[in-house]
Amino acid sequence: MASKLIAECVFCRIIRGEIPSVKLLETATTFAFLDIGPLSEGHALVVPKFHAEKMHQLPDEFLADSMPVAKKIATALGVDNYNILQNNGRLAHQEVPHVHFHVIPKPSADNGLIIEWPAQEANVEQLKELAKSMKL
Amino acid sequence: MASKLIAECVFCRIIRGEIPSVKLLETATTFAFLDIGPLSEGHALVVPKFHAEKMHQLPDEFLADSMPVAKKIATALGVDNYNILQNNGRLAHQEVPHVHFHVIPKPSADNGLIIEWPAQEANVEQLKELAKSMKL
Repeated sequence: MASKLIAECVFCRIIRGEIPSVKLLETATTFAFLDIGPLSEGHALVVPKFHAEKMHQLPDEFLADSMPVAKKIATALGVDNYNILQNNGRLAHQEVPHVHFHVIPKPSADNGLIIEWPAQEANVEQLKELAKSMKL
Repeated sequence: MASKLIAECVFCRIIRGEIPSVKLLETATTFAFLDIGPLSEGHALVVPKFHAEKMHQLPDEFLADSMPVAKKIATALGVDNYNILQNNGRLAHQEVPHVHFHVIPKPSADNGLIIEWPAQEANVEQLKELAKSMKL
């Protein structure tokens, strides 16, 4: 499937080279560059060459390459501790409305992504009901 | 490439059916189920059927399917706001040493993943030096 880019999106414009970026690598479906507002040194963005706001709106062909590209970047950075993060929707901290995967090195506790993890204990019967209700 | 699972890993044992889970779907390379310690309703795990601790240690064949499977789950949950998260290393909040991608619905500000975003302003020349030094 061909790329789909639009005129008014900042990431589409970066992919087209209309806005400069510090490019890392590019494949037929994916473009990767360094974040200019990094959480830690090496913070990179992996961006599908298809304009969609949220991950579930992307064709699979534009998703298949994202983690292999993130893997190349993590390997080249030589990092042991890192997070892969992709945010969908303002409530979930998405800033640019074009799907992007963050590769964020975590060199120390106070550098990189900081997460809170308020886990609940689930009721297994309720989980089973939820799974049954999902059309998969 | 064939799956590689090991005896002593809890996620390998879930994939093999030795430990029960609330399964959502399964492909040739990926197994997905609901998290029993969810951050929000519908919190799911997408797990490659290949034992590796960190994302960059997985063969690409076991990475290509991960986001398409996460997409199926997000679509079936019908969520607008959600995070995809994959943690590598204890420092980066990894709990189980077998690669897993979290699909975490974000229904409200205090439900789901909570993130801090202490972005720095980067020096573009330093970013260019870093990109040049990476073997990509």
